[in-house]
Amino acid sequence: MTFALHPGLAADTAFIADWPLCRVLLMNDARYPWLILVPRRAGAVEIMDLAASDRSMLMEEITRASGVVRGLPDVIKLNIGALGNVVPQLHVHVLGRRIGDPAGPGPVWGHSPARPYEASARDGLIALVRSL
Amino acid sequence: MTFALHPGLAADTAFIADWPLCRVLLMNDARYPWLILVPRRAGAVEIMDLAASDRSMLMEEITRASGVVRGLPDVIKLNIGALGNVVPQLHVHVLGRRIGDPAGPGPVWGHSPARPYEASARDGLIALVRSL
Repeated sequence: MTFALHPGLAADTAFIADWPLCRVLLMNDARYPWLILVPRRAGAVEIMDLAASDRSMLMEEITRASGVVRGLPDVIKLNIGALGNVVPQLHVHVLGRRIGDPAGPGPVWGHSPARPYEASARDGLIALVRSL
Repeated sequence: MTFALHPGLAADTAFIADWPLCRVLLMNDARYPWLILVPRRAGAVEIMDLAASDRSMLMEEITRASGVVRGLPDVIKLNIGALGNVVPQLHVHVLGRRIGDPAGPGPVWGHSPARPYEASARDGLIALVRSL
């Protein structure tokens, strides 16, 4: 079985890069700087499904993504989550919260409909992540 | 600066154990099997604040907690999250979702008020986690 991105993730995101373990995606919601890391391991649903070496690599890629997002303007807090209640394919959200953002102190997942990026802003952010 | 559990976490949880890195807490909400891991590192807010060796240990303790929760009756999916929108002290939620649980496909955080455990159920779960 080879890795294939779940259509539910593909529909909501843009491709940024393949890091050693994860496909890195940009969530198409301009309200939050929001990366999604998808380990390229067919059939993985939970982090505990990964081999120990992959878990270590995932942690380092979460940290790498965190550094990107945490460095963006006005980001005051990271939210990191592996939920999978809707799309079972293992994926890890790494997103930045800002004062006054729509979800307030609550989680962003399921809060309200996304506001898609304009192409120029999306492409700029993709280029930034690729450059780091 | 020495580690001290944030009062906001202490208020909502019961102590289970100290693992090599994390204080392990039981969230006092009988609707979900829900552990909270708090790295005993003073001042840590984000996972990226931890040293690489601590990040590895955190990943292994997340995996250990995951194994406990995933093995409980009727748990079909894990939700793992480090949010900190309310309590800034770094803490990682490891909780199990069941079909028909109150939050449905959405996240549990901020969904609805907790339903505290009865003492016997709470103590039984604490003893189980300690035994594993």
